[in-house]
Amino acid sequence: MSDSFKSTPRTRVKRLHQRARYDRASVHAILDAGFVCHVGYVIDGQPFVTPTAYWREGDTVYWHGSSKSRALMAVEEGAPVCLTVSMIDGLVVARSGFHKSVNYRSVMAFGKPHKVTDPAEKLAKMEAFVERIYPGRWKDLRPVTRQELKATTILGLDLEEVVAKVRTGGPVDDEPDYALPIWAGVIPIRQVLGKPVDDGRLAPGAGKPPRVTL
Amino acid sequence: MSDSFKSTPRTRVKRLHQRARYDRASVHAILDAGFVCHVGYVIDGQPFVTPTAYWREGDTVYWHGSSKSRALMAVEEGAPVCLTVSMIDGLVVARSGFHKSVNYRSVMAFGKPHKVTDPAEKLAKMEAFVERIYPGRWKDLRPVTRQELKATTILGLDLEEVVAKVRTGGPVDDEPDYALPIWAGVIPIRQVLGKPVDDGRLAPGAGKPPRVTL
Repeated sequence: MSDSFKSTPRTRVKRLHQRARYDRASVHAILDAGFVCHVGYVIDGQPFVTPTAYWREGDTVYWHGSSKSRALMAVEEGAPVCLTVSMIDGLVVARSGFHKSVNYRSVMAFGKPHKVTDPAEKLAKMEAFVERIYPGRWKDLRPVTRQELKATTILGLDLEEVVAKVRTGGPVDDEPDYALPIWAGVIPIRQVLGKPVDDGRLAPGAGKPPRVTL
Repeated sequence: MSDSFKSTPRTRVKRLHQRARYDRASVHAILDAGFVCHVGYVIDGQPFVTPTAYWREGDTVYWHGSSKSRALMAVEEGAPVCLTVSMIDGLVVARSGFHKSVNYRSVMAFGKPHKVTDPAEKLAKMEAFVERIYPGRWKDLRPVTRQELKATTILGLDLEEVVAKVRTGGPVDDEPDYALPIWAGVIPIRQVLGKPVDDGRLAPGAGKPPRVTL
């Protein structure tokens, strides 16, 4: 397995190409840091963009939902999608309106998803998804039923045509602007977990909230 | 002006329709709480999803970028887009893998964007964008040049065909599962700003970081 994805006309970053990353490690690291992607697909020429949770196993990204979901039905037969993950890491405050920016990490993957159909494989994928966010929790849950498996569609997109983009660091201002008495720098942004809120109907012995790895 | 957007085949939420909101106040509130959207567009049948900052003025959502940006050039002549904003508010921890969920707010808007071409209008839009995130900062910045205005494309999408979706509250488990000794509830997620990091080349009198409204 090569350490990098090959760039293609769709994934080649033309402007600001120094932000592009094609190496497998960068792509995997960004995918593993996020858990919500935006899936783009086309119905009758009209683009749709649906946010959904995802998880990665090897070189495949998975997402799932109701078997009746329009967003899943539209692509389960192998229609082209663009799956984008983006995380905003900071506001880049420049000395001019033109040079303001944001620090971010993103991945854009193109391809045709496949549907996971084997029940045992579907079950294993659901486990992987739960364990991705709540490590160790799967064994404690009420088991998934055959009916629930049937009501769930799981799609996988193999990472073949994929590019990561990353911006880090401070503003890049025009040289004369550095002399101006205007504050500039970076204001970090991050996602944090709050204090867990118990469900109103916890049974005796329900224990503590799960560990979360986001 | 009606207080609600009319639902259409594209925006009508069929499953879980109780999560849908078509009223203008809900749509505006979600758009005003976010600042990064995902724009979906189609080139030669292939969907693309590009994350970008946006701002709202009245019933129009704007985004901008380099005049050479492929993502902007692809739609500036009025190609159909889907602009999606989503915010994750919490992990909904259920007693079964099937009923896990997330709390979120999202807006999906369909339409054909228009390009802002008048230089004075472009300038006013750039001001509105800066003020959206950094209220009061525009007047302190080095003014935008004619060349910078030319190098910037600003697109607007009128909110006509649009739907918001909101999930709040705890898990909805199967009735028998409430008796199980499994923790369930909500783990809130929010975005926070970190401590501003000064640019390494601040001029004397640069003052303090701007106020940020995200």
